[in-house]
Amino acid sequence: MANWTLAARAAKMNPSVIREILKVTEKPGIVSLAGGLPSPKTFPVQAFAHACAKVLADDAHGALQYAASEGYGPLREAIAGMLPWQVDPAQVLVTTGSQQGLDLLAKVLIDPRSKVLVETPTYLGALQAFTPMEPEVVSVISDEMGVRADDLADKAEGARFVYLLPNFQNPTGRTMTEERRAAVSAIAARAGLPIVEDNPYGDLWYDNAPADPLTARNPDGCIYLGSFSKVLAPGLRLGFMVAPKAIFPKLLQAKQAADLHTPGFNQRLVFEVMKDGFLERHVPTIRALYREQRDAMHAALVREMKGLGVEFNKPAGGMFMWLRLPPFMDAVKLLPRAVAHNVAFVPGAPFYAGEGDARTLRLSFVTADVEQINTAIAALAEAVREQAATS
Amino acid sequence: MANWTLAARAAKMNPSVIREILKVTEKPGIVSLAGGLPSPKTFPVQAFAHACAKVLADDAHGALQYAASEGYGPLREAIAGMLPWQVDPAQVLVTTGSQQGLDLLAKVLIDPRSKVLVETPTYLGALQAFTPMEPEVVSVISDEMGVRADDLADKAEGARFVYLLPNFQNPTGRTMTEERRAAVSAIAARAGLPIVEDNPYGDLWYDNAPADPLTARNPDGCIYLGSFSKVLAPGLRLGFMVAPKAIFPKLLQAKQAADLHTPGFNQRLVFEVMKDGFLERHVPTIRALYREQRDAMHAALVREMKGLGVEFNKPAGGMFMWLRLPPFMDAVKLLPRAVAHNVAFVPGAPFYAGEGDARTLRLSFVTADVEQINTAIAALAEAVREQAATS
Repeated sequence: MANWTLAARAAKMNPSVIREILKVTEKPGIVSLAGGLPSPKTFPVQAFAHACAKVLADDAHGALQYAASEGYGPLREAIAGMLPWQVDPAQVLVTTGSQQGLDLLAKVLIDPRSKVLVETPTYLGALQAFTPMEPEVVSVISDEMGVRADDLADKAEGARFVYLLPNFQNPTGRTMTEERRAAVSAIAARAGLPIVEDNPYGDLWYDNAPADPLTARNPDGCIYLGSFSKVLAPGLRLGFMVAPKAIFPKLLQAKQAADLHTPGFNQRLVFEVMKDGFLERHVPTIRALYREQRDAMHAALVREMKGLGVEFNKPAGGMFMWLRLPPFMDAVKLLPRAVAHNVAFVPGAPFYAGEGDARTLRLSFVTADVEQINTAIAALAEAVREQAATS
Repeated sequence: MANWTLAARAAKMNPSVIREILKVTEKPGIVSLAGGLPSPKTFPVQAFAHACAKVLADDAHGALQYAASEGYGPLREAIAGMLPWQVDPAQVLVTTGSQQGLDLLAKVLIDPRSKVLVETPTYLGALQAFTPMEPEVVSVISDEMGVRADDLADKAEGARFVYLLPNFQNPTGRTMTEERRAAVSAIAARAGLPIVEDNPYGDLWYDNAPADPLTARNPDGCIYLGSFSKVLAPGLRLGFMVAPKAIFPKLLQAKQAADLHTPGFNQRLVFEVMKDGFLERHVPTIRALYREQRDAMHAALVREMKGLGVEFNKPAGGMFMWLRLPPFMDAVKLLPRAVAHNVAFVPGAPFYAGEGDARTLRLSFVTADVEQINTAIAALAEAVREQAATS
């Protein structure tokens, strides 16, 4: 018998709670508000078809050959050009989805027991990427505008970085105000605390464009993560990171060891699709669709949850709403009842680095259409009513 | 100023020596025998073009959406079906190139100071993938048939695994005989030593098909890594691993944290291209091309290196030939002289986990055509002659 001995870090790696939950919810007829899946209506299929034909006609050998770990030059330039601060394309590293950026920076910046600061709650995928490097993850007290500046100042010392998702955060949907950004940026600069800024949802604003990124205020003190998953399509796995010169070479080496390079074909497809200003025409159509669905979900919650003691927000963008059930009601226990009523959601507790708030849950408003949303929220309210009656 | 503190492992991560060398060799008119780049003539561009159109017409939403970390079901089944032993598709994990497989298993199996056994010399990319997890890498004495069974037996105790590339190894081009495979397999089984078997070149045989994989002899004791980079195209970054049930779940969790999943679009393209037996028609054309180039390079070496004291082999497959310069001649010092004569190669020393043999170098016979190979080997011989005269 082979003696498979697992690394200590493997014991800390766990299957995504969300994925396990999603399995439970895979039954016919269910409306899932659980996963963060962009609406397929937003995928520019024709543009990709044209791009495939063009790339294979013009540059097949380049697209299909091994390539530089940094990424495809014209794409790196296009990414630098679309960001709202002065970015040298040499600081852009193309990644296999922005999830890979989290994996790479974890390898480069986290030693066992390194202190890493996160929001309360935070993106589960970031926790999963950090965990194998065995950090001590510390939650910074957060309110509806993100991390509180005073608590960040208290906890900054000795931390390797703070991980922030300032725009339409996953899971809460909250956004940092300009005032909060200025305060957080000043505290980080004073404490010498590096910021990892994750911005997958920044283009998905439905009321007003969000304030400037934290990275724009102090590029040498921040790693910025971006993604094409929400504005083009997640199935291409195309993301990027912008990193200061102090650490770019190490991130590049980690990238090379991780998968040599992101598929050159996919990089050329994305460049081809975006190069003539396509995103400027396409993204507003995504905003219009998701805005309508957000409004429908919010209206349905106002209507259906009346008197049930459920709290919820109306995010200014992104993909998610965050709910809090009445006292003593547990979202994990509510889930099977909701599934029985043909609606699924994700309990909020797994998104906390420390002890989770068992009353919270996350709803996605981008995958289901308006009619499904109305049906699903009514069903969820019915489940809450039943659960309240039994507890 | 931000206080970027690197993880201890980052200090051990170094840029690929090969990539640094390749930069030196990027001048017009040079024939590079350095990189391991498949000939673009072998890329089935038309088949990819048809597959792109078909996938986007039939299943665009599936191809462009988030997907399961395990990989695309039909592709996993096709991979299981093409392997020469009984493989459950549930044991197949699709990876973003087989390089990612090395990264994932390093995370799951290597603790700091874990003993890991490798060939002498071994694949540089594997060393790069293992290094961030800080193993103690131990070289097993190797001959022209791979690791020596006696030395493997001596060093097996306490090792997390032995990493082997039995077919047409990178960098040496050598192949393990059936007898050696049987001996190595028996020793590993007796010692409970897990085997990581890397097989990117197995289909590229030019004389006879190689013996059965080590994994076929003991699937529960082996992780098997495969790739479509050499038989279809590297630019899609499509590889896979087959792992026993004892560790598959941890590899899957590492995969999920690393990049969520390999691009679903690329997985469907490869499935679409290969599903009707395309590889059985296509791979023989690659073999014919590379066989001719291998023969040309070997003949040129016999002709041009006569009397120079240079040793070389004639690999039965793969992409590389391995040369040994005469005593006291250093391949690193030879390189600039070779570049002056418009030919580039990779010095062999970086491929050793321990102290390298400075006289060795690697030549690729797949990227350049026969005419270029003839010119390049004559130029290399001239460089060797000059170097011998000055030392």
